Amino acid sequence: MAGSSRPIRIDATLLSRYIEVLGTIGWQPQGGIVRPVYSQAWVVAREQLVEWMHAAGLEVYGDAVGNLFGRLRGSAEAGTVLTGSHFDTVPFGGKFDGALGVLGGLIALRALREQAGQPRRSLEVVALCEEEGSRFQAHYWGTRAILGLIEADELERLRDEQGVSIASAMRDAGLAPERYREAVRGDLETFLELHIEQGRVLYEERVHLGIVEAIVGLHHRQVTVRGREDHAGTTPMDMRRDALQGAAHMATEITRLVEQEGRPAVVTLGKWSVKPGAVNVVPQEVSFSIDVRHPNEDTKQRLVAAMLARCDTIARERGLTLSSEITQESHPSQMDAALRSVLIQAAKTCGASWKAMPSGAGHDSQEMARHLPTAMLFVPSQEGRSHSAAEYTSPEDAALGATVLATALYRLAY
Amino acid sequence: MAGSSRPIRIDATLLSRYIEVLGTIGWQPQGGIVRPVYSQAWVVAREQLVEWMHAAGLEVYGDAVGNLFGRLRGSAEAGTVLTGSHFDTVPFGGKFDGALGVLGGLIALRALREQAGQPRRSLEVVALCEEEGSRFQAHYWGTRAILGLIEADELERLRDEQGVSIASAMRDAGLAPERYREAVRGDLETFLELHIEQGRVLYEERVHLGIVEAIVGLHHRQVTVRGREDHAGTTPMDMRRDALQGAAHMATEITRLVEQEGRPAVVTLGKWSVKPGAVNVVPQEVSFSIDVRHPNEDTKQRLVAAMLARCDTIARERGLTLSSEITQESHPSQMDAALRSVLIQAAKTCGASWKAMPSGAGHDSQEMARHLPTAMLFVPSQEGRSHSAAEYTSPEDAALGATVLATALYRLAY
Repeated sequence: MAGSSRPIRIDATLLSRYIEVLGTIGWQPQGGIVRPVYSQAWVVAREQLVEWMHAAGLEVYGDAVGNLFGRLRGSAEAGTVLTGSHFDTVPFGGKFDGALGVLGGLIALRALREQAGQPRRSLEVVALCEEEGSRFQAHYWGTRAILGLIEADELERLRDEQGVSIASAMRDAGLAPERYREAVRGDLETFLELHIEQGRVLYEERVHLGIVEAIVGLHHRQVTVRGREDHAGTTPMDMRRDALQGAAHMATEITRLVEQEGRPAVVTLGKWSVKPGAVNVVPQEVSFSIDVRHPNEDTKQRLVAAMLARCDTIARERGLTLSSEITQESHPSQMDAALRSVLIQAAKTCGASWKAMPSGAGHDSQEMARHLPTAMLFVPSQEGRSHSAAEYTSPEDAALGATVLATALYRLAY
Repeated sequence: MAGSSRPIRIDATLLSRYIEVLGTIGWQPQGGIVRPVYSQAWVVAREQLVEWMHAAGLEVYGDAVGNLFGRLRGSAEAGTVLTGSHFDTVPFGGKFDGALGVLGGLIALRALREQAGQPRRSLEVVALCEEEGSRFQAHYWGTRAILGLIEADELERLRDEQGVSIASAMRDAGLAPERYREAVRGDLETFLELHIEQGRVLYEERVHLGIVEAIVGLHHRQVTVRGREDHAGTTPMDMRRDALQGAAHMATEITRLVEQEGRPAVVTLGKWSVKPGAVNVVPQEVSFSIDVRHPNEDTKQRLVAAMLARCDTIARERGLTLSSEITQESHPSQMDAALRSVLIQAAKTCGASWKAMPSGAGHDSQEMARHLPTAMLFVPSQEGRSHSAAEYTSPEDAALGATVLATALYRLAY
């Protein structure tokens, strides 16, 4: 690994061009990309990626579920070092989410092949077929196929809003759903994912790179507070059981608990329903969502318990009833310490500033990390924008991310 | 006024029967009365009232806008003592709101004619055509017609949801809108209104009657708090400008201010919109309604100013922007002190417990009171229910209200 102390030079112009061109596939007149898994736009994007992988001198092949690989075969009998990300988008999404990791990986492998020749370990870039869950609630479909985590009944059970099964959508895209088990990979040794931060920390703190320590665990809960409907004029304050007053009190206390905990704990109360919802009627029922995230599972659970206890007390004090149910839950996923060291070393080699940070959003890496050593590299998102047409990462920041990725891959595979 | 020290006996059975029968007119299969002004049900109800007024031995006549009067002519050249209430309903309303005041007045005049003969002053019961504003936003149309407060352009300007003008609806009901000025009454000396409380104070405190001191002034305002949309996972708490957190803080502070003020101040935050309204997105914009009521205008204004100042501070501290607009405003309306004394004296005569209280809801009396001495008498609403099929006042409570009303009318007119 003599070369690990110098950066690999990547073609920044080509990377920018690829990002722009891929961003036109599924682009809508009103702005934003609509490119859900197995859609027509997705098929076109995949064909474009095949062409670029060939142009990079890689062996190109796809698997049964639609993941696409570009391979630089190694000289040794050893496991594969994998990099990449997903190429589907949320509705009206941006050009960088997922795409940067695919194209940055592709450009990195191209540079490595040109500058360093054949690696010892095999190197691959993967364009994962699905991450966003925006057509099917498929929960990292491509990654799960690779890891052998797809269950047979999902093929017919997972359906889009039109009722189309994921198996049927796969067939329409020219794939063979019944062969999904063939996508399982036993040779993977390492996964490295380059991604935009999708938050404002790197941008506001003017840091080049984030080295992800853990992908946070998430707890989604829907809370319902019930009181009594009363006339807004004729019911004295001391005779009310106002569900909104209770819920507002709970909201301030939930926020206070999480602010006291400090970074990286976050909580969001994003979805509200106040019934009956009339100006002159005391609210009878308020429902609100809680989204809590933390990279440490114990801390997450402790925060949730503290919130619920506090809400319970508030409800009892105010004569309200409280019920809640978990709507989604995931555990934190730890990134591999040795791989993080490799990324940190590569950042230093490339003269990039970096900070260790959690990922507050979910990524393919969180599933990969449960089965093989995995690490993630973030580049800044302008003003933290993501999942929108306004998503933006400067060409310089994107190129620096790909440079550090290539440099780290060199260290791992050569 | 020798007879003022004994109660007038009213026909409680007939009152209950009338309430039940009138309550069938416009009653819906799913429960509740739909009887907006000038509707077919309203016309039928009016015809029923005509018949009952005749049966009570009253001179019956209607005016140009549809108010219906039953008159017991006095022996002296003097002004008229008027009692009554409205006979339109909210959608799916109850049998008592408005109807009790019309039928209680009718039963009271019937009893007075039978037991005391011709009064000195003329006595009239009025069935006012409109109070609820549920078809046209007509703001006490019947009362305003009597008081000469209707403006000519309202006839075409006021329209229901189907676009029908109030003039057209009047013609369909057999009335003559162009003659609306003929409804003005110059002879009215006094107005007494019997009504259900529509709140839970009398019911919970087990008091027979409420003697209204003032009808509260009302201030409706829609407040909009704007922050910034951010990703719920990737944005640290200290980097957020969360509109919901700000609005929840404002809601608790607004409530605290009004609770500190104490009875009879009330505030309700009944209508909420949280945008974009996704579980995993930090809310960018929250809009909520404020409904503040108080029988003293200065206190009401002071509370509104204090709320807005507090909200402004909270918005500034949190980097949010705040805007608000008044959506409705009315001044308190004071009931006449001498008339209240007459009601109190009548309550004592009849052995009824009573308490002085504000009316937190609006009534025809609030318009009447600005132009002639007016007072209101409340009877209990079971569990405070109103504007619903479940609205209920016991026959005993209703009869006691009508008895006290009759006794007070005797004192005023004989």
